[in-house]
Amino acid sequence: MPSLTRRQFVTRVARFGGAAAFAAMFGLELLARDRGGFKLEGRAPRGRGRRVLVLGGGPAGLATAYQLRKLGYDCSLLEARQRPGGRNWTVRGGTAETELGLPAQRCGFDAGQFFNAGAMRFSHHHRTALDYCREFGLELVPFPQFNEAAFVHVDGQPPRRIREFSADWRGHVGELLAKVIRRDALDVPLTAEDGEKLIAYLRAEGRLDASLTYPRNGDTSLDPTYLDHPRGYTVGPGNDDGPGTPTAPESLEKLLRAGYGTLHPYDHELNEQSTMLTPSGGMDRLAHAFAERLGPALLYGREVREIRRTADGGVRVVHTDAAAGGDAQTAFADFCVVTLPPHLTARLQTDFAAPTLAALRKGRGEHAGKIALQFKRRFWEEDDDIYGGRSLTTQPISQIYYPFDGFGARGKAVVIGAYHMSDPQGIFSELTLPERERLALEQGAKLHPQYPAEFDNAFSVEWHRVRYSEGAWIAWDNPADYDVMQRTLSEPDGPCYFAGDWLSPITGWQAGAFVSAHRTCARLHARATAL
Amino acid sequence: MPSLTRRQFVTRVARFGGAAAFAAMFGLELLARDRGGFKLEGRAPRGRGRRVLVLGGGPAGLATAYQLRKLGYDCSLLEARQRPGGRNWTVRGGTAETELGLPAQRCGFDAGQFFNAGAMRFSHHHRTALDYCREFGLELVPFPQFNEAAFVHVDGQPPRRIREFSADWRGHVGELLAKVIRRDALDVPLTAEDGEKLIAYLRAEGRLDASLTYPRNGDTSLDPTYLDHPRGYTVGPGNDDGPGTPTAPESLEKLLRAGYGTLHPYDHELNEQSTMLTPSGGMDRLAHAFAERLGPALLYGREVREIRRTADGGVRVVHTDAAAGGDAQTAFADFCVVTLPPHLTARLQTDFAAPTLAALRKGRGEHAGKIALQFKRRFWEEDDDIYGGRSLTTQPISQIYYPFDGFGARGKAVVIGAYHMSDPQGIFSELTLPERERLALEQGAKLHPQYPAEFDNAFSVEWHRVRYSEGAWIAWDNPADYDVMQRTLSEPDGPCYFAGDWLSPITGWQAGAFVSAHRTCARLHARATAL
Repeated sequence: MPSLTRRQFVTRVARFGGAAAFAAMFGLELLARDRGGFKLEGRAPRGRGRRVLVLGGGPAGLATAYQLRKLGYDCSLLEARQRPGGRNWTVRGGTAETELGLPAQRCGFDAGQFFNAGAMRFSHHHRTALDYCREFGLELVPFPQFNEAAFVHVDGQPPRRIREFSADWRGHVGELLAKVIRRDALDVPLTAEDGEKLIAYLRAEGRLDASLTYPRNGDTSLDPTYLDHPRGYTVGPGNDDGPGTPTAPESLEKLLRAGYGTLHPYDHELNEQSTMLTPSGGMDRLAHAFAERLGPALLYGREVREIRRTADGGVRVVHTDAAAGGDAQTAFADFCVVTLPPHLTARLQTDFAAPTLAALRKGRGEHAGKIALQFKRRFWEEDDDIYGGRSLTTQPISQIYYPFDGFGARGKAVVIGAYHMSDPQGIFSELTLPERERLALEQGAKLHPQYPAEFDNAFSVEWHRVRYSEGAWIAWDNPADYDVMQRTLSEPDGPCYFAGDWLSPITGWQAGAFVSAHRTCARLHARATAL
Repeated sequence: MPSLTRRQFVTRVARFGGAAAFAAMFGLELLARDRGGFKLEGRAPRGRGRRVLVLGGGPAGLATAYQLRKLGYDCSLLEARQRPGGRNWTVRGGTAETELGLPAQRCGFDAGQFFNAGAMRFSHHHRTALDYCREFGLELVPFPQFNEAAFVHVDGQPPRRIREFSADWRGHVGELLAKVIRRDALDVPLTAEDGEKLIAYLRAEGRLDASLTYPRNGDTSLDPTYLDHPRGYTVGPGNDDGPGTPTAPESLEKLLRAGYGTLHPYDHELNEQSTMLTPSGGMDRLAHAFAERLGPALLYGREVREIRRTADGGVRVVHTDAAAGGDAQTAFADFCVVTLPPHLTARLQTDFAAPTLAALRKGRGEHAGKIALQFKRRFWEEDDDIYGGRSLTTQPISQIYYPFDGFGARGKAVVIGAYHMSDPQGIFSELTLPERERLALEQGAKLHPQYPAEFDNAFSVEWHRVRYSEGAWIAWDNPADYDVMQRTLSEPDGPCYFAGDWLSPITGWQAGAFVSAHRTCARLHARATAL
């Protein structure tokens, strides 16, 4: 779950507890620690052919079925779609999708082009996810999340490079604080010597001159034999046979009043710190790697309708052929692991206990979406020096993500022309398909005037309208709801267990799904082998 | 030229001029601007077979010969080595090199492993370099220069993650300034409203709590439903079935006194801002792409001995077979472009004018070097979550660069175990080959205790000992020397022109070599076509 949502969310909720409170809340004994939170590999495969039904073939369901089979269970996975992965979904030329209430959409990308419509990158510290890539031999490439050359755009003003604002913030903040320290106006326990060390640091970080001023003419290079202005140039070094023309800073007042502070990408969220990674060729390589290993245990087109307990303590699941609308079938098992989105599980016919049902209803599917735009050439690279990463704008499109691969190639390429989050007003998520495309092109053109001439075709995904997901991730209206969901659904309801990124401390990331899946496998296995 | 040198240099020189002074210094008319500073492509190919000798097959010489041939010149390039590229040099298994005064070294890397011993990356705004890659169809991949997970190490203390210190600096600096503003102690023209906006920015950037304090317990997550501590965790979220244990900040005093401020990688040098790029498979792909296009016009093993004027205004170059020590040969041409390192050109037998010779002697070859270490596995990825980028240490090895590709792969990989600069004390550059290896292993093990168990073999390059380079780049003892070199060698000495990164505002980067080469081509062409 990226930062914009989080920020918007934070404005609505009070600060809540700390790490210790959270740990106490779970009230669980500490299990053996490993790279995925739970040590599964060392466990004896004593599943002894007990039957487990896993419902939902997203990352949590895929990992659950994969691990339980390793542990010796007779495990089947029921997936409603005709593909594995859930919100791990890579769209390519020919991909078809019909969102709820909208006409069918068919992707017109050229061969080799793709769009990670859901999950698109891993954090470098998301070990569960990266270990699966290693185990399956997937090639990982860097995903350049943060790009100093990309734009920050406040609607109504020209787009600016991220580096311009990051240099200005460092300069202005450093100047203010350095001058205060030098004047000894600081009511903090800093010795004079430490104060001077801090000034030296602020000078270097902010490129302040000897008078501790951030040079207003932009001349911030430290070395005359190696010109280097962190804020960038209007004319680059060597052009015009000269050393280049540095850009001039914005005043602090202008930065503050224009609202750049709220868009500034330096929020340093741990999950988005460099280096981020992604599978070469599309995120769905990971989903398909699981699917290959599951083989016929993964059943496609099976839409779950009922989850019922049986008299012998097992579980009965009624499912239908989603595509053909065929007759309902019934499957029996000793255990069931439900990895469907909780708000969709709550709608099924079940005999879950009342607290379970209440907990399932605590989360809602977030309105977030992306639109992919295929362009005829890589003008963001060729004209604007932008290689990967994202631009930010106050417009509803929110973010533009540039391709993370194929740098310098000629020919067509796909940009994510909008990645908006938390859209309760429906600015984007209630539009028709042509309206989405028009809005993305209009708003994107304010950052990239090349849009109209270079546009080729589009494919959009609004996740709250995507059947079987109905949300980009789970959001909670207050921390208490989150608390109830985590606490309640971490326990099984009879033979039924739950797993998903929404049931982990890493919501909205595949690593969360894997952590949750591993925990559920460990607990199910502990119970089954104690029987 | 990276930042450590620049910083050390800056301590020795006074602040010098500005962009305008520099432009005036060159005193050149503005030529047509293009992506390389000089518009060569539109010019009529009116070289009419005039003969040009280009001396030196590094990036400047390769680009000069390539462009002049396009302009219709009969151009040959004399290169002393048996390979193109100069300091663009990729070492692979079997590569042999004998440094001045040292025994031969032969690289023992496994197949597929390589080491960019000189140039290893492009800035995203180095358009000349990237345009050549595009023109030659080279695949470019991101070079993750900056990695929050990599280490900062002050000798005598344990290594810490870069993110720990960046979070602490933001937190402490933000707290100090926010509290001062709130107390209205700031003698700056900020309105109360602007002050509150700045406080809001500092709060977000520094993760300050409601009392504007950087939480000393490390509990800096903004959202209880999405735990996120920018400083990182000792136990990750999901491990131990809990939300993770955030690391606790260092005090400001400790940060200042331990000297982390001087190592802190946030100096934001423009040339090292993200996104950086590199050719897939090795930097020498670019050198070889030029060489393929030059074909037989590029002569290897030709060591230049004399550069003389001829009576008809042309030039005579005496060169020998460097490898075989064969007889001297003489080549005649209308013009000559010298791209050899200036301090080596000064040693040749020439009849350059006294100011030219004096200018050539103004620069010296920098003592800088790297050592590549092949390890048996990628422990920095598997154990430490470090994917690309660099760690910094106060030890003489200075920097450790992790591989920029093959992420998540099993098996061997090559780390740059030292990239030190400005080594006048000879800590590294005066060692024997085994001593270099031992020093790199000893010092690197303080950051990565896996070194002894995983080490396989090494290959080191100290550029001031590399024949035909005798320096990693050109350095100047003061700005006046730089000034004289630029001013004097930008003009031809009779039929002889000069080009090189050292004759550009982008010293130590291939883009500087290309900018200089393009300028020289434009000026030579203007003169030749006016004849």
